[in-house]
Amino acid sequence: MTQNKLDRQSPIPLYYQLKEILLDLIKSGELEGGRLPTEEELCIRYSVSRGTVRKALSELESEGFIVTEAGKGTFAVKPKFEQSLLKFYSIGREMRDLGIELTSRTILREVTKPTREVIKFLGINGDEDVNKLIRVRYLEGEPIILETIWIPVKFCSDLTEKVKDDVPIYDILEYNYNLKILKVREMLEPVIINENEASVMECKPGIPAFLVERITYNLEEIPIEFRKSIIRGDRFKFTTEMYR
Amino acid sequence: MTQNKLDRQSPIPLYYQLKEILLDLIKSGELEGGRLPTEEELCIRYSVSRGTVRKALSELESEGFIVTEAGKGTFAVKPKFEQSLLKFYSIGREMRDLGIELTSRTILREVTKPTREVIKFLGINGDEDVNKLIRVRYLEGEPIILETIWIPVKFCSDLTEKVKDDVPIYDILEYNYNLKILKVREMLEPVIINENEASVMECKPGIPAFLVERITYNLEEIPIEFRKSIIRGDRFKFTTEMYR
Repeated sequence: MTQNKLDRQSPIPLYYQLKEILLDLIKSGELEGGRLPTEEELCIRYSVSRGTVRKALSELESEGFIVTEAGKGTFAVKPKFEQSLLKFYSIGREMRDLGIELTSRTILREVTKPTREVIKFLGINGDEDVNKLIRVRYLEGEPIILETIWIPVKFCSDLTEKVKDDVPIYDILEYNYNLKILKVREMLEPVIINENEASVMECKPGIPAFLVERITYNLEEIPIEFRKSIIRGDRFKFTTEMYR
Repeated sequence: MTQNKLDRQSPIPLYYQLKEILLDLIKSGELEGGRLPTEEELCIRYSVSRGTVRKALSELESEGFIVTEAGKGTFAVKPKFEQSLLKFYSIGREMRDLGIELTSRTILREVTKPTREVIKFLGINGDEDVNKLIRVRYLEGEPIILETIWIPVKFCSDLTEKVKDDVPIYDILEYNYNLKILKVREMLEPVIINENEASVMECKPGIPAFLVERITYNLEEIPIEFRKSIIRGDRFKFTTEMYR
């Protein structure tokens, strides 16, 4: 009884109608083993050309809803990791509470000069040294988040040597430098994953992602950290519940 | 003193380094009138080929950071509208508080059958009738949000006739049908704007956007509405502040 027929009188292109129907099927979770019908089956079931089917599937694939496995077929992607919007700040704790394994791998650690953006958000001078760290964060072994962190050297001079993959950075800041966090301010935007990010996160360039920019303040309300996190949109979503 | 030179020893492609520098310039807000240097100026300033400059500019344009106005030049896009994450539910009120004009235009109103997704989220049967509304929401006259709303007919039988562009839907539900809202549950994902959405919102297909899916519950905690909002990522960002 659902809308699962193509409307040939509609101004909406057939491939797009088919895509919406398939998306609906994918999201319903009713596909056996997550497997989509073959191209041939779709052509017959919806009386459309191979080109129409391919266009629908290719958009679903580039938007990260399906994956094609050579010789096996086309599959709906696994359900996304979910994270409460209000708890992203402490994603480590939230994921542990949910029994999801979170690991980190630092792929760059250097002392460098700040970009204009870092200068602006941290309110520092262009000639101040900053610690720069790039980390990949893995949920259940999947690379989901790519973080770039800038913290001025004046707050923690040998941070790049102190950083350990299995210790939260805010713990390192507190125990080694007595830097305590009062609050964070975050900005959330949708972006498209570029080739560099995709190669590090082992996903396809062009898929949508979240960009979270964070400014972290110490107890004196001085900004001590600027952090950019790219989060794969094909594997992650935020949820929230609000009472009126 | 900022990193504004290209590193010809780096494995990072030159166009990509140039793009990062330009992005930094754009975000610094230091561009006179928001105007970028011309292609010629960029070639000379960074000693790169025309092809390298064009590739950097073209990615910045497709990602929605700059726009080219024929005969006038290339410009950084205007600052995005900002909205507290926790107040999206009442975007109307928040925008009014900020003095930003929010208007709506309903472009579709019909009674139809639910999609699988609607069936799942509202917990209804496939043969129940649902009111379906599609609205464009404008901030300061710019089309920023495209909403699709499904509400079962059993809760409000002639809603499609009652809907008015200048009255909030939840007010209509309360005053006409005594339907009061207890809470909403929202899921937030990044998506890519498709051609249909782009034509309604007068933007480019392929730019990143937010998809907000909302389930609205009445006082008895029964789901009465499923709503999907596409929000242009080139013109909107969410912000939040969290205390540790």
